[in-house]
Amino acid sequence: MTTSFHPPVRTLMGPGPSDVNPRILEAMSRPTIGHLDPSFIALMDEIKSLTQYAFQTKNKLTLPISAPGSAGMEACVVNLVEPGDKVVICQNGVFGGRMKENVERCGGIAVMVENDWGTAIDLRQTEEALKANSDAKFLAFVHAETSTGVLSDAKGLCALAKKYNCLSIVDAVTSLGGSEVDVDGWGIDAIYSGTQKCLSCTPGISPVSFSDKAVDIIVNRKTKVQSWFLDMNLVMGYWGEGAKRAYHHTAPINALYALHEALVILKEEGLENSWARHQYHHKALATGLEAMGLAFIVPEADRLPQLNAATIPEGIDEAAVRKALLEQYNLEIGAGLGSLAGKVWRIGLMGFACNKKNVLLCLGALDSVLSQMGASIQTGIAVTAANQYYTQESLSRI
Amino acid sequence: MTTSFHPPVRTLMGPGPSDVNPRILEAMSRPTIGHLDPSFIALMDEIKSLTQYAFQTKNKLTLPISAPGSAGMEACVVNLVEPGDKVVICQNGVFGGRMKENVERCGGIAVMVENDWGTAIDLRQTEEALKANSDAKFLAFVHAETSTGVLSDAKGLCALAKKYNCLSIVDAVTSLGGSEVDVDGWGIDAIYSGTQKCLSCTPGISPVSFSDKAVDIIVNRKTKVQSWFLDMNLVMGYWGEGAKRAYHHTAPINALYALHEALVILKEEGLENSWARHQYHHKALATGLEAMGLAFIVPEADRLPQLNAATIPEGIDEAAVRKALLEQYNLEIGAGLGSLAGKVWRIGLMGFACNKKNVLLCLGALDSVLSQMGASIQTGIAVTAANQYYTQESLSRI
Repeated sequence: MTTSFHPPVRTLMGPGPSDVNPRILEAMSRPTIGHLDPSFIALMDEIKSLTQYAFQTKNKLTLPISAPGSAGMEACVVNLVEPGDKVVICQNGVFGGRMKENVERCGGIAVMVENDWGTAIDLRQTEEALKANSDAKFLAFVHAETSTGVLSDAKGLCALAKKYNCLSIVDAVTSLGGSEVDVDGWGIDAIYSGTQKCLSCTPGISPVSFSDKAVDIIVNRKTKVQSWFLDMNLVMGYWGEGAKRAYHHTAPINALYALHEALVILKEEGLENSWARHQYHHKALATGLEAMGLAFIVPEADRLPQLNAATIPEGIDEAAVRKALLEQYNLEIGAGLGSLAGKVWRIGLMGFACNKKNVLLCLGALDSVLSQMGASIQTGIAVTAANQYYTQESLSRI
Repeated sequence: MTTSFHPPVRTLMGPGPSDVNPRILEAMSRPTIGHLDPSFIALMDEIKSLTQYAFQTKNKLTLPISAPGSAGMEACVVNLVEPGDKVVICQNGVFGGRMKENVERCGGIAVMVENDWGTAIDLRQTEEALKANSDAKFLAFVHAETSTGVLSDAKGLCALAKKYNCLSIVDAVTSLGGSEVDVDGWGIDAIYSGTQKCLSCTPGISPVSFSDKAVDIIVNRKTKVQSWFLDMNLVMGYWGEGAKRAYHHTAPINALYALHEALVILKEEGLENSWARHQYHHKALATGLEAMGLAFIVPEADRLPQLNAATIPEGIDEAAVRKALLEQYNLEIGAGLGSLAGKVWRIGLMGFACNKKNVLLCLGALDSVLSQMGASIQTGIAVTAANQYYTQESLSRI
């Protein structure tokens, strides 16, 4: 007979999900109520307002999609792009490629601006593509590439979009809560994120936001949105203003309890404090990894603090290392994805998992496992180097 | 400052979500692990096998979609139907209409067989439509209409589909776990359900299953599935057989802990016992409602035990009644949907919520609230009538 499942207690330092704050797990287990219950409607209003805080926006159409980040990407694309619409997509990792898939599956024309994996999106090259495609309606890009650990200049890219009369579609799955995201300040038109990265929430929900210009396009489409489930014209009826909420689909009640708690925690800490914390522990981790002799694939200026792609020492079976970390330390780090598979590890420092304890655990465990495997690294100094960083530098709170 | 949300403790006897078993809420709050963790892969295998049990199928492509039942419907339609494909859709409530929307949004041609709301789907009429549309590829229908409380003859409809060389697409959102669903026995080709009805799980996930014939269509499509997120050709790579699971999207880990626990509970009780329990308490509730003078809109033979659509006494403000039940008794019952809005209440008896305590609470509370409002009902006898039923009849377990 199959019995209840009791998961092992891991430390999650991969590309997400990240360690979930116990407050969030507890919130998730509170009694389920109906999706039209007045108490739930009040909760929805709070979630909306907290999501506006996280995205730094006043956008009315700001809400959580009832499915993971990939569905958030699809929601942005299928609601905005109509057959024949041209979209300039900057790609510098796996997720730019997924944007292309989404655009093409709804009949859009994707014009790709290819950048080397591990580098930030090139603004000059993007501007040339926008110049050469004056009929393009959208500029789409990934703010924080989870496959490589690169942070691109979203502010600069959005300014380019505006200059060439394009609306911007931005993937902030890994950036939200860990790095600055300023939807109104940067003029982002459509943005999606995920709950399982720097919000430290359980996976499964995708916060999204659309500017008034984007909403204008959505409500004036010539064709119906091809997805009924993701059609914002319908979803708005449930998440919109006013007391009368029209049933669309059954909201994932308990997952939204969890998201609410995650956003409350983010607001308690403060956005700027959270960004500073991610930067601080990233520096400590980087100090330790570099002392050990593990190189970053991303130039320092473009590194995403919450996702560290480190090269694998020569001759080392990277999967065996991850297996040993999991079995000996209950520690999960991530493998490389796409063209970086087998070439890097991806070490996450996201949200609740971004703390001193985890930095030291990860460095100590890697040091030990790599030593056992005879890797040519500097052994026994990574933890000390990180501790020195912690002693010298302090995390300033706002 | 926004603070943690503590929901009221309701009794959920609407159209879903239904009361969640505390075992499931507790399972949901267990520590999150990675979506490629070996322990999670093992859990996925158990979920697959338990879902096969619930659906009574050996279908290999049986898995939970990472989004609510509406997305399950969309997954079945967008994976199977290609532009120009003709689908005969039987409609006898809201959800048949939603199937039409889905079919049309992926370029399919919907041929509607309209039945009166509150009646079961007519087999003769369906056969005529299939005869008149010999080029139809699919027959789609709702097994248990949540908007009206009608159970249709899925076995007979699937036999018709087979006779006319159509694949069957079946909505089992409200039937699964509460009424017989026999995917292999009836020859269902594509089926979707929801977690928040008779599985008594939190809302947000949609179990689906596809026959080998359906899989054959999916892998040999001429066009790409229009939804990247729901494309079974890609989802199969993660949920498929073998040790190598390819990342597609991040699975909603904790929601799947909950589904696993819900399915373990269903298996512990046994499918047949669960169906019998739903029938038993439905009879007790019906006895009480009818004693009170509230009529059912559905003929007895077609009634869905887990969803009871009862007419509203003349001159009574139905919304005020629901508000009073919620405020005075923390009891949620459902309003009418679509063309039945304002005409009926929908009283759910689903999964964990289907028990004697809830039947008596609902009858007692309705009796009191309706009396206070001066409704022309027989007061003071509903609870007694239900208790008499419980004394006379016993629930036989297998």
